[in-house]
Amino acid sequence: MLTTHPFDDDKLREECGVFGVLGPLDAAALVALGLHALQHRGQEAAGIVSFDGRDFPSHRALGQVGDIFGSEAVMRSLKGNAAIGHVRYATTGETAVRNVQPLYAEFEFGGFALAHNGNLTNALMLRRQLVRRGCLFQSTTDTETIIHLMATARGGNVIDRLVEALRQVEGAYSLVCLGKDQVIGVRDPSGVRPLVLGMLGEHPVLASETVALDIIGAEYIRDVAPGEMVVLEAGQVQSLRPFQSAPSKFCIFEYIYFARPDSFMEGHSVYEVRKKIGAQLAIESNVDADIVIPVPDSGVPAALGYAEESGISFDLGIIRNHYVGRTFIQPTDKIRRLGVKLKHNANRAYIQGKRVILVDDSIVRGTTSVKIVEMMRDAGAKEVHMRISSPPTSHSCFYGIDTPEKEKLLAHKLSVEEMRRFIGADSLAFISLDGLYKALGHAKRDAGAQYCDACFTGDYPIPLTDFEAPRPADVHQLAERRA
Amino acid sequence: MLTTHPFDDDKLREECGVFGVLGPLDAAALVALGLHALQHRGQEAAGIVSFDGRDFPSHRALGQVGDIFGSEAVMRSLKGNAAIGHVRYATTGETAVRNVQPLYAEFEFGGFALAHNGNLTNALMLRRQLVRRGCLFQSTTDTETIIHLMATARGGNVIDRLVEALRQVEGAYSLVCLGKDQVIGVRDPSGVRPLVLGMLGEHPVLASETVALDIIGAEYIRDVAPGEMVVLEAGQVQSLRPFQSAPSKFCIFEYIYFARPDSFMEGHSVYEVRKKIGAQLAIESNVDADIVIPVPDSGVPAALGYAEESGISFDLGIIRNHYVGRTFIQPTDKIRRLGVKLKHNANRAYIQGKRVILVDDSIVRGTTSVKIVEMMRDAGAKEVHMRISSPPTSHSCFYGIDTPEKEKLLAHKLSVEEMRRFIGADSLAFISLDGLYKALGHAKRDAGAQYCDACFTGDYPIPLTDFEAPRPADVHQLAERRA
Amino acid sequence: MLTTHPFDDDKLREECGVFGVLGPLDAAALVALGLHALQHRGQEAAGIVSFDGRDFPSHRALGQVGDIFGSEAVMRSLKGNAAIGHVRYATTGETAVRNVQPLYAEFEFGGFALAHNGNLTNALMLRRQLVRRGCLFQSTTDTETIIHLMATARGGNVIDRLVEALRQVEGAYSLVCLGKDQVIGVRDPSGVRPLVLGMLGEHPVLASETVALDIIGAEYIRDVAPGEMVVLEAGQVQSLRPFQSAPSKFCIFEYIYFARPDSFMEGHSVYEVRKKIGAQLAIESNVDADIVIPVPDSGVPAALGYAEESGISFDLGIIRNHYVGRTFIQPTDKIRRLGVKLKHNANRAYIQGKRVILVDDSIVRGTTSVKIVEMMRDAGAKEVHMRISSPPTSHSCFYGIDTPEKEKLLAHKLSVEEMRRFIGADSLAFISLDGLYKALGHAKRDAGAQYCDACFTGDYPIPLTDFEAPRPADVHQLAERRA
Amino acid sequence: MLTTHPFDDDKLREECGVFGVLGPLDAAALVALGLHALQHRGQEAAGIVSFDGRDFPSHRALGQVGDIFGSEAVMRSLKGNAAIGHVRYATTGETAVRNVQPLYAEFEFGGFALAHNGNLTNALMLRRQLVRRGCLFQSTTDTETIIHLMATARGGNVIDRLVEALRQVEGAYSLVCLGKDQVIGVRDPSGVRPLVLGMLGEHPVLASETVALDIIGAEYIRDVAPGEMVVLEAGQVQSLRPFQSAPSKFCIFEYIYFARPDSFMEGHSVYEVRKKIGAQLAIESNVDADIVIPVPDSGVPAALGYAEESGISFDLGIIRNHYVGRTFIQPTDKIRRLGVKLKHNANRAYIQGKRVILVDDSIVRGTTSVKIVEMMRDAGAKEVHMRISSPPTSHSCFYGIDTPEKEKLLAHKLSVEEMRRFIGADSLAFISLDGLYKALGHAKRDAGAQYCDACFTGDYPIPLTDFEAPRPADVHQLAERRA
Repeated sequence: MLTTHPFDDDKLREECGVFGVLGPLDAAALVALGLHALQHRGQEAAGIVSFDGRDFPSHRALGQVGDIFGSEAVMRSLKGNAAIGHVRYATTGETAVRNVQPLYAEFEFGGFALAHNGNLTNALMLRRQLVRRGCLFQSTTDTETIIHLMATARGGNVIDRLVEALRQVEGAYSLVCLGKDQVIGVRDPSGVRPLVLGMLGEHPVLASETVALDIIGAEYIRDVAPGEMVVLEAGQVQSLRPFQSAPSKFCIFEYIYFARPDSFMEGHSVYEVRKKIGAQLAIESNVDADIVIPVPDSGVPAALGYAEESGISFDLGIIRNHYVGRTFIQPTDKIRRLGVKLKHNANRAYIQGKRVILVDDSIVRGTTSVKIVEMMRDAGAKEVHMRISSPPTSHSCFYGIDTPEKEKLLAHKLSVEEMRRFIGADSLAFISLDGLYKALGHAKRDAGAQYCDACFTGDYPIPLTDFEAPRPADVHQLAERRA
Repeated sequence: MLTTHPFDDDKLREECGVFGVLGPLDAAALVALGLHALQHRGQEAAGIVSFDGRDFPSHRALGQVGDIFGSEAVMRSLKGNAAIGHVRYATTGETAVRNVQPLYAEFEFGGFALAHNGNLTNALMLRRQLVRRGCLFQSTTDTETIIHLMATARGGNVIDRLVEALRQVEGAYSLVCLGKDQVIGVRDPSGVRPLVLGMLGEHPVLASETVALDIIGAEYIRDVAPGEMVVLEAGQVQSLRPFQSAPSKFCIFEYIYFARPDSFMEGHSVYEVRKKIGAQLAIESNVDADIVIPVPDSGVPAALGYAEESGISFDLGIIRNHYVGRTFIQPTDKIRRLGVKLKHNANRAYIQGKRVILVDDSIVRGTTSVKIVEMMRDAGAKEVHMRISSPPTSHSCFYGIDTPEKEKLLAHKLSVEEMRRFIGADSLAFISLDGLYKALGHAKRDAGAQYCDACFTGDYPIPLTDFEAPRPADVHQLAERRA
Repeated sequence: MLTTHPFDDDKLREECGVFGVLGPLDAAALVALGLHALQHRGQEAAGIVSFDGRDFPSHRALGQVGDIFGSEAVMRSLKGNAAIGHVRYATTGETAVRNVQPLYAEFEFGGFALAHNGNLTNALMLRRQLVRRGCLFQSTTDTETIIHLMATARGGNVIDRLVEALRQVEGAYSLVCLGKDQVIGVRDPSGVRPLVLGMLGEHPVLASETVALDIIGAEYIRDVAPGEMVVLEAGQVQSLRPFQSAPSKFCIFEYIYFARPDSFMEGHSVYEVRKKIGAQLAIESNVDADIVIPVPDSGVPAALGYAEESGISFDLGIIRNHYVGRTFIQPTDKIRRLGVKLKHNANRAYIQGKRVILVDDSIVRGTTSVKIVEMMRDAGAKEVHMRISSPPTSHSCFYGIDTPEKEKLLAHKLSVEEMRRFIGADSLAFISLDGLYKALGHAKRDAGAQYCDACFTGDYPIPLTDFEAPRPADVHQLAERRA
Repeated sequence: MLTTHPFDDDKLREECGVFGVLGPLDAAALVALGLHALQHRGQEAAGIVSFDGRDFPSHRALGQVGDIFGSEAVMRSLKGNAAIGHVRYATTGETAVRNVQPLYAEFEFGGFALAHNGNLTNALMLRRQLVRRGCLFQSTTDTETIIHLMATARGGNVIDRLVEALRQVEGAYSLVCLGKDQVIGVRDPSGVRPLVLGMLGEHPVLASETVALDIIGAEYIRDVAPGEMVVLEAGQVQSLRPFQSAPSKFCIFEYIYFARPDSFMEGHSVYEVRKKIGAQLAIESNVDADIVIPVPDSGVPAALGYAEESGISFDLGIIRNHYVGRTFIQPTDKIRRLGVKLKHNANRAYIQGKRVILVDDSIVRGTTSVKIVEMMRDAGAKEVHMRISSPPTSHSCFYGIDTPEKEKLLAHKLSVEEMRRFIGADSLAFISLDGLYKALGHAKRDAGAQYCDACFTGDYPIPLTDFEAPRPADVHQLAERRA
């Protein structure tokens, strides 16, 4: 079946998911369930901080949500009816656990926890200033900068200090914060990363995606708006607009790949958008063939849309082995080459002698595409046509997505025809940028387009202060943050 | 994507898979890969025994293949160019590791290892006789009986003793055995469980399914015939027929659910057979509806066949969370009820207001079906029609499939209409027994039918000696073997 | 044999040991060996930070030195020819690892690591001031205060900032610090905790005790003086005296129990001092008896001194089971009572019918003494006389020793005669305070005595600012630090 | 303090300890305590089997007793008021757990468990015969032979079959067995290994040493006699003498080193015997010196006896580090050489300028002796005299003690003078064989001596059938058993 996308070495990866809830008993248990539904946004570490009326018990660890929060002792320790949580990709080594979020700090006025989805683009510059003032940083995350800006703010309450801190940062952030009896959600003025508001009965909930509302039975109310701060307090949801307004720049790749297909974003069904993209792809670049085959696991909706539009029959031509751990080692070269089949196998009866259309959502380095085309040929395919439901990914993301350096992106180095030869397909086509906007209900992309599509266009909507002229001393920091 | 079927509490479970190879360097590494491809036939324990010209190094453990054989040290220890392996469901506690196969024994004439897929139905009776003669049993598996029958046989070489032992046993068995420079495959005279022969270049290979040939790049030659013994020795494949012939009784459920869809059995593509069953189901019991939805993960091919035949559009209406571990604990009742959504979520945009046809491959206890129908209703389905690509499962299997006792099978207790009410669907239909045979290319089921369909009909082709009149002292044994 | 004192629930416990070395290849490996020799000063956590010319690789973990630093991968990562290390008692939970030393901070001017043996007595007061200025604390240790004081100092180089910070703190500290190409050692002006300087060839070494010099083959040069700061740089040892001088107040309990018997302190052999204390005890309070028995494991030297002075024969009357783990659980009450014998057994042939003198070094809560006297009686002792080689421990330590609250100290609650009745001995005597000073070569204790003996006298040489009038908000902090 | 002897690479090692109890509730918990007290007889694996009136629950694992039986769940599973247990050295790999005792078998007449201390010397010969009859061996232990001999015996009850089996075996064995409501103890006719009988109230207990009685508060009644079988049943102790009588040949090394000093054997205090041996050593080979120093951990009683006899003062000149794990790895050669000090340190104040007498109990390979003499010299000893409280160990043991092959025994290769030069001492003396017998209360060793002293004399009291002319095929077996 269509699964939420598992680890694939040759995909871009969302770096984080956040969740918060105020009011119910067992708040932390609800957060654990919410994080479980957001596991596709970060599989290597997770954390929860709750507030029990006095203390802020917390638990953070490397691993998956079910393992970290599967212990009754852990869950019992996370008392209170307010809690926030975070899933992320972890770095390695000792640094790792220090970097796991939510971050927590004890200010003069009390405890405060913060979970961040996104990436700040002037954190290093701010960090240098803060260190000069005597601030000691404990982690290598950009997020800690926000905490120190709050600690050294001119005073005021939590909200005042958080606003003062955020006015100084640039970049993408969807934050969920926890203070005393207070849960706060914020999206940066461009609204790059998602954040939705739901209600579980009378209790407000914040989450990166609607699937995290579904799992706890909460109702999807609306997306938090770009630049909006929502303050959940005593069952009330207060909306603030503390920042200068900016054009909305929601990440278009959330539709293409990152979000779960059963989520809704900006009111759209992600699955439906993906089918429409597949249909548009068929309109733009159809080819005479016998079978449309999705590349597992995420290509199914686009492939179904393509098949419906083109009238070519849809079948599962690649079968995934469900039991793939990450530890299998192949001891000899000979075996290592066989090893590419550990994960997938051709459904030979449906490939042999057929002209095949493969539908995938993106090509990053191209390494997986090469192997899948080869697998089709080995299984006897007469022709192999590759169709991609995104434009060529030619630029890195600096707003919270784990992308290789630009120099490793296949589309940065090669033309489409060169890429076709590289992956060994008979034909290769990507959806056009305008086609993508069409599938999303717009006439075409234009200057005022509402999405961030920098990974296709290099058109970065928010300044890249740290990255444009990094000081030598920062390179290590940037590298580590990326690791 | 369609994955090989993961753990589902309400499915029947294949109990074992076997694999053997003679000739290549790194024989054990090839066996590890083969077992990995057979992981769906047994996920809780695995073992490999190799022959290095002098010793029979072995490694058996609880866990999945990738974890058990992912260590270089382990693989290096399994020297030699002949090896066999086994995957199985394990029992718990100290007994567990003793029961993990391949079994190994040192006979007077040398070492011998044996891996068994199936279940013997007169093992207890034989065991009582052997104990009376002074034999000491070390495991609680039926398979050990074969070893003791060989040890106490009247003499002769390995083949003579194995034949003499097997002539005394009743039940289902596909065996792969390893002697000095010899790999042996045998199927019982009814051929209940599968076993195929392949060639990796000049090296013969035996495996439960063809997918295990695919993963190592071996070619599928043919199924080992019911009652056939194949002896692989020095690159030669010798075929013996040491048993009285009997009508072929291949397990029909392998086509419906157990085998991987990308396997071939008796020359048929399993995926294709499942699509045909789905189409036949649509012919027999179609209903006016808006969408055909497969029940994850195994219902996809039948649902595609149903959709194609009926002309109703196919979509993924249930999205699986890829990151489901088994350890997630829900600390409160309230959370526990939410917990049913840990694994699946409705693709709400495609359910709301729709008349839904759900296609699943079987109903065992019915517990999952109840929850899936409820999930459809919660997501706003107007009507929910359940279609099952097998006849009602009303009898237990004694030939190597883990079935609940008859009393727990929903179809044993309830009529189809009662089952419909139990699971809460608007309609419920199973494929007919004749329809199933039709999908397999036969006119209908008749007395001479070539499949074992006892789980639907109670028509057991092999005597159930141990089970018909168990002695009180054996009940514990039978229970333990089943645990 | 006499072992360095293992875990005993009824002893005071040293809280930390420190070690540093500058110059040799494999500096971290030498630190690991040194910490291993200091393991008796802290068994629950350890850490090492090295400097490789650019970075400060580090490894800290809960557990014993041999386990933490027994991995080649870990040791390889700790590159460089300068390194410092720390052993300590750990707290539990997530806090634990954050509190493991050496602490590390990146200042504006570069990295800096610090390992602390001792305890500050005004850390909370300073912490409140720092938090008000916007400092964020990450651990609950008093030691972090020093780091923040350095970060917010008026500037200058590492030495300047460290001196400025230490001028503000009160309490006991022996520090070993690591900067770029620099190892620094400091003792507080009263010199409460030990710190010695050694040379390994041309490379200077700092350690809590001389046994850590022995293990690496280094030569013992001298004790770092109270109030002295030694700066190791490029093979040079520079001595600074940046603090106001104060009377020396070395911890007298180091001689009695904490230090290893094979260490030298202030030029004295600890073993020899203990024998002299035992001899003085015999002079003060001998009794007619048949055998002198040391209470394992630390009572041997004092018992030998006692036996030699009194002429009564010395024998091992209590045999320790070497294989005592900490995890043995006794499932029933009946067994639990038996369980006191898990660790020790009477050497019955030497007890039965004998008048026994037991020599121990201290009585804290008295729980172990009760059991040992009972064990002697059970083994048939005719009389049991207990002799203690320290004065009654009636006051808590605030300078780095883990003592129970005053209310739990047996000597705080009971007179000597009441204590005798409590432990069930026929007689009980402690060495006199003057006798203790005599054994150390002084005529008697007087106002100008050079040792801290507050645990016997309540005469605290350094102010207890945090403890005298704790604010309600601090109680939690103090408790946690103590946990 | 004197500890029961820890792991020392250069000592002979006892291979097993056994324990059994019939009657009390929590029988298994008492066995766990007893095994804990016997841990010095085997530290690498342990097992317990109990009888609960119907089943024989069991738990066996690699590790130490406290870890294996420290879990409440494990202890709860070992129900019943009869239980036996075993500690042993384990082999490595998969074989390991199969070899952990007690062995268990289900005979026609019911379950039976057996724990063995000792070693059979004709097990391989018997094994060949049994395999020829169709017996399948599961372990590589000699002990399994007894089980198969019982299974194939001519019938009769448990006692009859056990006697019939034991009449066929040669070698050393102290067995504790468990049948239905029955615990059985047996010593071989020569009584090589110890076995004592005690009473815990009305419940009889069997143990390898009296310290295992002490820990549970049981009273020592008597040693089981050589060739005696004691049957514990319903609170009765029945004594049988089923074997031909033979001269008693108790292992003399139990007195010298193996047994705990607080044990009694044949009515003697082991500690007292060791002191007498030390005194005899002083009589035979005293030398003018300043200090007598025991080699830790086992040399203390002999050193005390030596000091008392010679009038030279006794002191602890070598201090052991209590916290030595087994995992410490030294990454460089330079560090590796330092590493000899991980475990011991010279008490320099007592060595420098002194003439030292070191007292140790044996020299096996001599590797430790070399290092200890060197440590004394490094600490400034003027003279180093080594005195050994056993005669030269020149022959291997085949009766249950782990000895190196004869070729690796220093005393097999070198004369005493050559040994002195090898270890670098100024003088070296061993106790004489007659002196040893004197310390044990005999006039001298003569032909009718009651001890097995084969390791000193090569005078083996029981035939070495398997070892005298091993068939090539057995060499592997013998090696594995020894591993």
